Amino acid sequence: MKVLITSGGTTENIDKVRGITNFATGSLGKIIAEKYIEDGHFVILLAGKNAKLPDPSDNLKIISISDTQSLDENMAKYVPQVDIVIHSMAVSDYSPIYMTDFGEVATSNDLNEFLNMKNSSKKISSKSDYQVLFLKKNPKIISKIKEYNQDVILVGFKLLVGVSKKELFSVARTSLNKNKADYIFANDLEDIFDGQHIGYLVDENGEKIAHTKSEIADLIFTTTLQKLKGEANG
Amino acid sequence: MKVLITSGGTTENIDKVRGITNFATGSLGKIIAEKYIEDGHFVILLAGKNAKLPDPSDNLKIISISDTQSLDENMAKYVPQVDIVIHSMAVSDYSPIYMTDFGEVATSNDLNEFLNMKNSSKKISSKSDYQVLFLKKNPKIISKIKEYNQDVILVGFKLLVGVSKKELFSVARTSLNKNKADYIFANDLEDIFDGQHIGYLVDENGEKIAHTKSEIADLIFTTTLQKLKGEANG
Repeated sequence: MKVLITSGGTTENIDKVRGITNFATGSLGKIIAEKYIEDGHFVILLAGKNAKLPDPSDNLKIISISDTQSLDENMAKYVPQVDIVIHSMAVSDYSPIYMTDFGEVATSNDLNEFLNMKNSSKKISSKSDYQVLFLKKNPKIISKIKEYNQDVILVGFKLLVGVSKKELFSVARTSLNKNKADYIFANDLEDIFDGQHIGYLVDENGEKIAHTKSEIADLIFTTTLQKLKGEANG
Repeated sequence: MKVLITSGGTTENIDKVRGITNFATGSLGKIIAEKYIEDGHFVILLAGKNAKLPDPSDNLKIISISDTQSLDENMAKYVPQVDIVIHSMAVSDYSPIYMTDFGEVATSNDLNEFLNMKNSSKKISSKSDYQVLFLKKNPKIISKIKEYNQDVILVGFKLLVGVSKKELFSVARTSLNKNKADYIFANDLEDIFDGQHIGYLVDENGEKIAHTKSEIADLIFTTTLQKLKGEANG
């Protein structure tokens, strides 16, 4: 089988020296990738800049991802080539449009003007006491995956912070339906510390719990391969 | 001698899952640290989260730095203990205050209200097409170093992007005077690529050029030790 895995986080540049980054170490994506590689499958790993990486292998191709656009371009290219997509990367919801002094914004008659502006300097000045950054929503990459390849088995990820299990499952099922995912791995940042990583593999019928990154990798590995076998036989 | 070196970049959290980060690999700080360690000096390295690090050594203490506040706290603690400070870290000029929907900002009568707000949710919602992030200026850490220890030899760094040599030197000399630095290492991002890293060690009397990270480390190492010897004899 060929498996595409995304890991780590994206970074959206504000200017040449700074950007907005999504915190993610890539640890989980690394362990999941190793699981498939050990079993003889070929893995394409789209990894954020500071993501932890598996050791080199003939069964592993690593592609470095900067921002959401670079992720999308590589998804469009590689998703049609694979059987399974495991999209664990923390993707920026918003990208910077324009950053300026607070004074310029406070005295404007129509803030809409800033939504079409661009910073011309390569390093934005840092003189005023307050600044304002305008951001626009990025396209949701997960929603494009089944458009790129309708036959692929898709595992999406949903990370929330400090919510109830009920809300976590509800958000996961909404994502499942909206993005035509086969599974959503749903987890809460407050359940991840030390060696523990509690999370739930959610599908239409229910949810399965895992307690560590290694258990998560096992669960996703086993479930996706069974699903693929089922579809081949069905 | 005891030397404090800062390297890598700071990250200012927007919420629990994302932040504004300054791009810096820590490569130069690593090489400078190795130079002093090899010559038998003791190095305290304040390093950003993803900074490249020297190999462990009895002559090296590494402290992990998250944001500007953590940098300042550690500067206040360690600067009084050292003879030389080499402040090569890329420090965030601004920290997030409040992030919200564009609509909420566009309909406000007084934007000043947002400068005192705080996001209550741990992960900011991502529903609206545009968002606005308000930021406040951080204290300039470099300006505090001589307050923490007036006898220290201070090397500051100034990175600009796509400016003339004249402007680069002018900005460096302004920083020299304002921060009571002994030297400013001035460089332009557009002069850093592949194995090349052109930059200038600027003081009141002139500037000395270096062409690679290794030359920069040599130049800073030699110059600071001579300066210290001169002061001891003078």
